[in-house]
Amino acid sequence: GGGRRFVRSHDYDSPCKQMKFYFHDILYDYSNSTTNSTSAAATKPTALATAVSSNGTFFGQMVVFDDPMTSSSALPPLLNVTADSVRAQGLYLYDKKEAYNAWFAFSIVFNSTVYGHGTLQLMGADIISQKTRDISVVGGTGDFFMSRGVATLRTDAVEGFVYFRLQMDIKLYECYV
Amino acid sequence: GGGRRFVRSHDYDSPCKQMKFYFHDILYDYSNSTTNSTSAAATKPTALATAVSSNGTFFGQMVVFDDPMTSSSALPPLLNVTADSVRAQGLYLYDKKEAYNAWFAFSIVFNSTVYGHGTLQLMGADIISQKTRDISVVGGTGDFFMSRGVATLRTDAVEGFVYFRLQMDIKLYECYV
Amino acid sequence: GGGRRFVRSHDYDSPCKQMKFYFHDILYDYSNSTTNSTSAAATKPTALATAVSSNGTFFGQMVVFDDPMTSSSALPPLLNVTADSVRAQGLYLYDKKEAYNAWFAFSIVFNSTVYGHGTLQLMGADIISQKTRDISVVGGTGDFFMSRGVATLRTDAVEGFVYFRLQMDIKLYECYV
Repeated sequence: GGGRRFVRSHDYDSPCKQMKFYFHDILYDYSNSTTNSTSAAATKPTALATAVSSNGTFFGQMVVFDDPMTSSSALPPLLNVTADSVRAQGLYLYDKKEAYNAWFAFSIVFNSTVYGHGTLQLMGADIISQKTRDISVVGGTGDFFMSRGVATLRTDAVEGFVYFRLQMDIKLYECYV
Repeated sequence: GGGRRFVRSHDYDSPCKQMKFYFHDILYDYSNSTTNSTSAAATKPTALATAVSSNGTFFGQMVVFDDPMTSSSALPPLLNVTADSVRAQGLYLYDKKEAYNAWFAFSIVFNSTVYGHGTLQLMGADIISQKTRDISVVGGTGDFFMSRGVATLRTDAVEGFVYFRLQMDIKLYECYV
Repeated sequence: GGGRRFVRSHDYDSPCKQMKFYFHDILYDYSNSTTNSTSAAATKPTALATAVSSNGTFFGQMVVFDDPMTSSSALPPLLNVTADSVRAQGLYLYDKKEAYNAWFAFSIVFNSTVYGHGTLQLMGADIISQKTRDISVVGGTGDFFMSRGVATLRTDAVEGFVYFRLQMDIKLYECYV
């Protein structure tokens, strides 16, 4: 409860709030560690994906994830801890038949002494061929009540089909403080 | 058409518009009533879900729903009526391998003499272990043109795997009136 | 970077920005052209869909798409070109067991000399039985930085289960210019 003040930033380089994270996705491939895996394919690549590309663009595959987000690039020592953590939970889809390209919709769940408590909702096109790509922060709750903004994604590491790490620079331009 | 006035509320406890509903989800389990069922699993739990938990956290399962929303907790007499109704349509995912936890993305479709006509779009983390959890209202149309806000969810009833009922307290903080 | 000015429109008929497109969806049906197909079913209709309707409402089917958007109703000569294009990428679901009805969540990716560069994020109920239906524009990036608005959909053509074309009238009411 209690009143808040609304703050709007008009400048891409001067958000009203900014946070930088690494997003770690460890895809279960049926043989790797179930303890360490943080995501899994909920659907197979579609028949269209298979028909156009033998080595796989995964068109239509949906992955569900519960991925840790960290302030430095190292994986956290315990991947599934939910106390004092920041986690991204939701889905991504592979959405292009000629290339490896994705679309994201997810929440970031903050349960953190550093960053606070609450959630942000994000959605957008992860155009993998671009060095950086912006997706939208479309809402927030708790300490991020009613926030809006942009998150800039940059691929930081890829290890086969099992692990990727994104830098995620979250910039809020509408804040209730 | 016609001009509207923009109203912003800065106080969690004093939204510019508030509506309280019960959200009823009756999952088709291959044996219950097809007439009464309002949702169905579009994907099975992933191999990761099965590997980590024999009694099921359903990690990666996506459910598609067309769920009635009512102002009192009783189920409506006719579950599929669309005249003078409020319905929630979209998806939820189970998104945690160690626990039963969900993520929602859906629209509320108002076709109601009481609440008006139009839609609200919602998205967020349904952290089932918390007594109440807030998700975001990220947009609206018709009588809810351009609305934003928060919906507070509280589990009100659970009957096995086939029925659950949520209280949904919708609070809008950006209204065009 | 650089400062922008925030503009809000209060009138449905006078958005701060407006763009009209045709949205082309060519569903892969396992036999048509893989070159021309722009979408594919990632899940089958659920058992509930099959149980209630032999001729198909597809309840629970999710389709992933990478659909061209054009300013005139004709299909573009090359369906998969990404240079100087506007494309819609994301998912739709069939979400009603008694009728053919859909729900959308997607991004529009602009890479266009005419419309600019960036993305819009959209989400909402596509109530197919209504002549026109509004969905929400919940965020934007690049030239559409932080935009919000409404997109009005109208079915323009349907050819069996393989092709449909929507008119999409995008109206933004919150613009950063």
